[in-house]
Amino acid sequence: MTLVSIEDISRAASALVDVAVRTPLLAFPSLEEPGALWLKLESLQATGSFKLRGAYNAISSLPVERRDRGVITYSSGNHAQAVAYAARAFRAPCIVVMPDDAPWVKVQATRALGAEIVLVPPAERKRHAEELSAEDGLALIPPYDHPDVIAGQGTVGLEIVQDLPTVEVVLVPVGGGALASGVASAVKALQPSVSVVGVEPELASDAAASLRSGRLEAWPMTLTGRTVADGLRTNLSELTLAHLAQRLVSELTLAHLAQRLDAIVTVSDEEILAGVGELARSAHLVVEPSGAVSVAGYLCKREELPSGRTVAVVSGGNIDPGLFADVISRWLVSSSGATPAR
Amino acid sequence: MTLVSIEDISRAASALVDVAVRTPLLAFPSLEEPGALWLKLESLQATGSFKLRGAYNAISSLPVERRDRGVITYSSGNHAQAVAYAARAFRAPCIVVMPDDAPWVKVQATRALGAEIVLVPPAERKRHAEELSAEDGLALIPPYDHPDVIAGQGTVGLEIVQDLPTVEVVLVPVGGGALASGVASAVKALQPSVSVVGVEPELASDAAASLRSGRLEAWPMTLTGRTVADGLRTNLSELTLAHLAQRLVSELTLAHLAQRLDAIVTVSDEEILAGVGELARSAHLVVEPSGAVSVAGYLCKREELPSGRTVAVVSGGNIDPGLFADVISRWLVSSSGATPAR
Repeated sequence: MTLVSIEDISRAASALVDVAVRTPLLAFPSLEEPGALWLKLESLQATGSFKLRGAYNAISSLPVERRDRGVITYSSGNHAQAVAYAARAFRAPCIVVMPDDAPWVKVQATRALGAEIVLVPPAERKRHAEELSAEDGLALIPPYDHPDVIAGQGTVGLEIVQDLPTVEVVLVPVGGGALASGVASAVKALQPSVSVVGVEPELASDAAASLRSGRLEAWPMTLTGRTVADGLRTNLSELTLAHLAQRLVSELTLAHLAQRLDAIVTVSDEEILAGVGELARSAHLVVEPSGAVSVAGYLCKREELPSGRTVAVVSGGNIDPGLFADVISRWLVSSSGATPAR
Repeated sequence: MTLVSIEDISRAASALVDVAVRTPLLAFPSLEEPGALWLKLESLQATGSFKLRGAYNAISSLPVERRDRGVITYSSGNHAQAVAYAARAFRAPCIVVMPDDAPWVKVQATRALGAEIVLVPPAERKRHAEELSAEDGLALIPPYDHPDVIAGQGTVGLEIVQDLPTVEVVLVPVGGGALASGVASAVKALQPSVSVVGVEPELASDAAASLRSGRLEAWPMTLTGRTVADGLRTNLSELTLAHLAQRLVSELTLAHLAQRLDAIVTVSDEEILAGVGELARSAHLVVEPSGAVSVAGYLCKREELPSGRTVAVVSGGNIDPGLFADVISRWLVSSSGATPAR
């Protein structure tokens, strides 16, 4: 299997100039260890997540006639908005297939970016998108299982090494695995001595399981559907979840992770939400659970990580407002808990 | 009266290298008008606000023997933490005089930075600090009424012009006036054609009133004590408020504003909180009310502002968690309001 190269990632970086925000790399405020942890803030990326990089790179890599015919994807989360945003930049028609129980705000946000939305039962999303793609000649832009998507996400790693050449450890969230694959590919090519560690939610740790067993492990959706760090949680009914098993990583991303990741650690949902709270309180950032996974790894699993100057990729900021209000309320409780009786 | 010069501000910038974060200038995400509004994110500054710049520059400008004897200030808000943080960097002793009804978390945060805290009745803060300063030979670092503080805050303006040379309008919050004085001084010196507009909370619009009348107007604390955009709100009892009148801007800052500000607009507390909500939802940032004042001006008072590519200074992120939870809850209500019955 051919893996994505540093040349692929550099080409993606050229395509993304003036499109993707060159997101800031910010020192996490810490009195005890100033400069020990840095945050790569993809939560401040256009569309609120790193997904724009891969989606735009994949669409920009299409032959012009094919792109002009239009693109299609299946997603109800950050990838949907990223594809719609990128298609809009190319003035290409765009269809997004979404589950018919997707939150209405996500449907509206994607529609506002100019995409046509097709609502189908949750389990039929991918199949429906593939059928429409074949029928109408629309280019399918998958969320992670594509070299151009991986190369696009890899530009995050490129920027980290350029902006902090003294980096020693990079922590990157693992979902479908394209971000971790791309970042590991870029960082290892440019600075092989840097350790790249994936961080995965315990309840969706199929990548960790697959890396252990050496083959792609399916993962029960009854588990992945419950982690706060996955958009699926609110998108699939209990009934649907019970009937599905899922592979989150793909053969392609797993091959990258197996060859280029130094290690993978897992974090609990409690630890992820503590990370969201800490990022709001100390760093003044609104981060979604999937985006806080890497910081949760740093804060809660230090003993499992290589030591050294660390960059945590904060992958996105599109948090459900109800969940965010819960997190802020906990912060409130812990603040007032610190007030002595007077 | 001698005003702060661009040379003073450039010297401050040199002093602040490796101390202040060169905060990112980020395009506010907007589909309708991409690149029209940019945010200068002092909420991501060390200590969570721009105040570090002025405090550090003032302390670094002291003769070494005087600095080594120690510094003192009176504040319960961002300036307290900024002075403590800066003094710590110089290993100088630091006393912060705080009102005895200050929120305990702010007392703790300032103490954690190594400052000694002296609690006094609210109305006696300034006098007590001045007495201690005279008795113990401690250098008093005022929150805004000092040329070195103004020059330090002016480095925000310097960075704006360097990072976005095509800027046409700068919106800057007005409290004590040092930030607005410094930013206007830097921007007007470097690019006289840029409009610099102050934005002030209606309930604390003493600068607007003073600029109109041409003389320093005292302002009833019963009003300023109520705006969400002022740390005073939670620090002074109703009784104290009723007995005080306050000048927020000083002769020194008013002189800068009168000569270098193009205009001043005011925003209501409702508009300020809407700005806080919009910054959380669309830009994924945790911003305090005083920090959202400039964005509120842009979003709600466009007809009063010069047109053109605009930078809004987002001055700080240290919001009270209870207030922030309220803002997020409103966002939640407005989200679910968009959900059709299904």
